[in-house]
Amino acid sequence: MQIRIGNGIDFHRLEEGIPFWLGGVKLDHHKGAVGHSDADVLLHAICDAMLGACGLGDIGVHFPDTDMQYKGIDSKVLLRRSYNLVREAGYWIGNIDTTLCLQEPKIKPYIPKMIEAIASTLGIPRADVSIKATTTEKLGFVGREEGVMAYATVLLTKH
Amino acid sequence: MQIRIGNGIDFHRLEEGIPFWLGGVKLDHHKGAVGHSDADVLLHAICDAMLGACGLGDIGVHFPDTDMQYKGIDSKVLLRRSYNLVREAGYWIGNIDTTLCLQEPKIKPYIPKMIEAIASTLGIPRADVSIKATTTEKLGFVGREEGVMAYATVLLTKH
Amino acid sequence: MQIRIGNGIDFHRLEEGIPFWLGGVKLDHHKGAVGHSDADVLLHAICDAMLGACGLGDIGVHFPDTDMQYKGIDSKVLLRRSYNLVREAGYWIGNIDTTLCLQEPKIKPYIPKMIEAIASTLGIPRADVSIKATTTEKLGFVGREEGVMAYATVLLTKH
Repeated sequence: MQIRIGNGIDFHRLEEGIPFWLGGVKLDHHKGAVGHSDADVLLHAICDAMLGACGLGDIGVHFPDTDMQYKGIDSKVLLRRSYNLVREAGYWIGNIDTTLCLQEPKIKPYIPKMIEAIASTLGIPRADVSIKATTTEKLGFVGREEGVMAYATVLLTKH
Repeated sequence: MQIRIGNGIDFHRLEEGIPFWLGGVKLDHHKGAVGHSDADVLLHAICDAMLGACGLGDIGVHFPDTDMQYKGIDSKVLLRRSYNLVREAGYWIGNIDTTLCLQEPKIKPYIPKMIEAIASTLGIPRADVSIKATTTEKLGFVGREEGVMAYATVLLTKH
Repeated sequence: MQIRIGNGIDFHRLEEGIPFWLGGVKLDHHKGAVGHSDADVLLHAICDAMLGACGLGDIGVHFPDTDMQYKGIDSKVLLRRSYNLVREAGYWIGNIDTTLCLQEPKIKPYIPKMIEAIASTLGIPRADVSIKATTTEKLGFVGREEGVMAYATVLLTKH
């Protein structure tokens, strides 16, 4: 068995009155994340971690934010396409672990739906997807609710 | 052998005149970390990385900061309980690697004691626990000594 | 096969009119990174991740910034020496994945040269080195172009 590991970090700015897509789920919140796609910071971090583990570049290389075909796109499409590239390289997901850093809203009630969205998009067991969340204790741009950060690690295997 | 990897990130605010617990050790410093428990950011990041690798949620799920039984608790208790959950799921620690981001004080003299505290709490060899430290070159809230961040990765194995 | 994983995080301040070494390559930019060595934040994060995976301490332990022999040193020398320590401990690099967080300049054109510099310094295949890049969407000290951050994960194997 061959094993590789990857990491992904993503940041998005938060603004009043726009939708907040996170982990493939729409949150009920007065702010949302700004971006060329649906700005789903968690799915982008997972894409980057998968691509990085295989040495396939990053999400910006494959789905550039200057390309109008990705304008407003559902990031679950990008997640599926990223995993297709990983599968073509011969790798399977072992497990995905993630940490969301945001001040508001409370994420815990959304986590089961997020895990379901990610697992079903990738066609992997829910037990292989983990989402954790922390605030930054009101520190920095995350603490001031100006932005959101997501961090992902992925283990890939090849048999 | 099955393998899983996890990550943990934690942040705590620093304030004057309170104890600073870090890596299971009390630092000699004019500031300390604020939290519901003893606010040990390094042990919390390790708990999260272990739980995340197994898909067991995060430290906030198992030891909520709204629960008075965890008020002021020694985070070594939380570390031991987190590993008990991991062991019940059939996994063992392969290795733990961590990075502390803080401006002051110098952490290097404390590292051997921290490694000893973590290894003995978990019942694993000291060689399987690593603690690294960096400043942020006075940048951001860590650089302004308003807060401390810890980052952990954990490798788990199942035979 | 034994496996270990490590992580590295590094930060450097950016200032006008000094060279910007990143990933072993000199960037064409009006700012550069400040440090005791050549301040290559990406190579330092990789050194830390390799050393951390083996429990060998961190870059500050082996190459202290108070030691004049490291003043202005090419970080590729530190990278090679770090890997020598890892090899002496019996480990080989499985794969390296990294994420650069900086606002300017665009890193994409430099990535092939950076990968070549890292792979040739370590004597490993280019396919085992990955560099990804993201802005922080103008948020925080990275977004204000006051600093640069690099994050690395490394998988090591022992046969």
